[in-house]
Amino acid sequence: MGEFGLISLIQSISDKFRNPEQASWQQLLIGIGDDVAAWQGDNHVQLATTDTLVQDVHFDLDIITWEELGWKALAVNLSDIAAMGGVPRYALISLSCPGDIEAENISKLCHSMAALAAEFGVAIVGGNLAAASNLVITITLIGCSKNKSMLKRSAAMPGEQIAVTGHLGTSAAGLEMLKGKIRLDAETTNILRKAHLQPMPKVKEGQILVEQGVNSAIDISDGLIADLDHICEASKVNARVDIARLPIHPLVKANFPDYLELALCGGEDYELLFTAHKAIIDQARGVLNCPVTVIGDVVKESLPNRVTLMDSKRNVVHYDKGGWEHFREYNGAKIP
Amino acid sequence: MGEFGLISLIQSISDKFRNPEQASWQQLLIGIGDDVAAWQGDNHVQLATTDTLVQDVHFDLDIITWEELGWKALAVNLSDIAAMGGVPRYALISLSCPGDIEAENISKLCHSMAALAAEFGVAIVGGNLAAASNLVITITLIGCSKNKSMLKRSAAMPGEQIAVTGHLGTSAAGLEMLKGKIRLDAETTNILRKAHLQPMPKVKEGQILVEQGVNSAIDISDGLIADLDHICEASKVNARVDIARLPIHPLVKANFPDYLELALCGGEDYELLFTAHKAIIDQARGVLNCPVTVIGDVVKESLPNRVTLMDSKRNVVHYDKGGWEHFREYNGAKIP
Repeated sequence: MGEFGLISLIQSISDKFRNPEQASWQQLLIGIGDDVAAWQGDNHVQLATTDTLVQDVHFDLDIITWEELGWKALAVNLSDIAAMGGVPRYALISLSCPGDIEAENISKLCHSMAALAAEFGVAIVGGNLAAASNLVITITLIGCSKNKSMLKRSAAMPGEQIAVTGHLGTSAAGLEMLKGKIRLDAETTNILRKAHLQPMPKVKEGQILVEQGVNSAIDISDGLIADLDHICEASKVNARVDIARLPIHPLVKANFPDYLELALCGGEDYELLFTAHKAIIDQARGVLNCPVTVIGDVVKESLPNRVTLMDSKRNVVHYDKGGWEHFREYNGAKIP
Repeated sequence: MGEFGLISLIQSISDKFRNPEQASWQQLLIGIGDDVAAWQGDNHVQLATTDTLVQDVHFDLDIITWEELGWKALAVNLSDIAAMGGVPRYALISLSCPGDIEAENISKLCHSMAALAAEFGVAIVGGNLAAASNLVITITLIGCSKNKSMLKRSAAMPGEQIAVTGHLGTSAAGLEMLKGKIRLDAETTNILRKAHLQPMPKVKEGQILVEQGVNSAIDISDGLIADLDHICEASKVNARVDIARLPIHPLVKANFPDYLELALCGGEDYELLFTAHKAIIDQARGVLNCPVTVIGDVVKESLPNRVTLMDSKRNVVHYDKGGWEHFREYNGAKIP
């Protein structure tokens, strides 16, 4: 059935119990299926998101340090709030871990998490501890929206351009390096390790995108193709991506022959993928403190696939369904 | 170090990064260490809690049905909101589960969860799915407080009586029955199974306690002694419990020779344990639709243990530290 099939199932069950007479449903703005849930608070829109890291699925304790793990577990949640242009505020930390875990390691993990939280004005206010055979970290992050506008998956419109912050594929290259024990020079190693294990969530950038009038965005966690597919599905549009324009870090290009696959399907870049008209993107680029690259455009639902890849001559490039999906074999895009 | 030691460690790390210049910290009312985190929203106090059930630690799929599991996972969170006298509103569901899990089972789990949510006006608005070797369910529940008053662990005062809703030990008796495959008559089996696998959270009851002027409460998840100990620690008081007064269901008394241990240390009853002056308890009893039993009183910090047990002749009854604590052998109270 796959991860997304299961999410649809849960969504349909939740919808079945939707009760327009209950305050919670009346105030709900965004439910299951976006980066973040949103509902109307007294004066602000309230946001909440949750994300889980599972040992040996999302991380390998032979590769990641406890400090990096604490950082990353919170960063992926901050990135979801960033993808809405929201302000993160409160975090709840749920740790399930083996009984013989060393307090020193938990201390390192929490220390680095609390330091990242502090950097973004987030207070860690609660959580849960439970025994388990494997380490599972679930964080729930609660925040609010600065104003009524939000970045949604469902607001992309034909005629808009598709843009992305930062670089693509750097995190996946980092994972390849770490898993394959590939030796690279110190600078490259450092950049790739950081990209994969200590991604910097684009919280401020998301807020700026909202201020500049962008309506539609997602953070890149599953991979460019998969996440763009999420936008297309939610917005009922199609997307064309010019693979020659993908912003790939020169050090990734130089060291990884499969750099295109990494950029298209690697995931975990935690950059913002958004759509807007050219003028708005140009304006946002002037305010943002990071690279902003236009990589394609949004069109009406008229193409055979929701996401179409094109080469520089506008020829269609075929690929297998890509992106990271749980409950299914990893299946990278095959670039001919 | 134990579960509570780890919680203290995390609390101290979180506190280290407390920044009074940040809005999140300015508005924080209750952080780590109570049933629920609370902060000042625009017009209401906002509440959030998270709780995790781990396969083979908190539940056994040979015993619990998928419907009961969905119910219980949400119920334990509703109980935390109940323990504050709050109003639950939004739930985020994080499921980590084996890739070969059957969609039908997930469907049953979510269906029963959504039905319980609907009963309490809660909308399921988001979550996360991840692959894992064992099933881990983490739910975060967000709500608000009807008025500025809340039930806190830290508000018990010497001179108050200690009271409890419903019965104690029924859930633990249910677990003993289910694990030991003890055969009892149909009515008893049904009551005990429900108590352990489908506890009814005392949400309405918690709200009534606040309205009646009760300030201090906790829900019984770890066991009477352990949870009363939490109140005493947070309130800097001692407690005396008259074990002859413990409300134990006649069917538990009749079938379980260790009924006292079950009532004192069993846990997972999800009843409300609260303290208040006699007049307030008498008044609350008139409004509540469930048994309310006074089981002891709050005194100044003057006794050798935070919680002292007494028999009907007011002789001290010795016990080992009881209650359910993760990361440590279960150690039931030994009643001589």
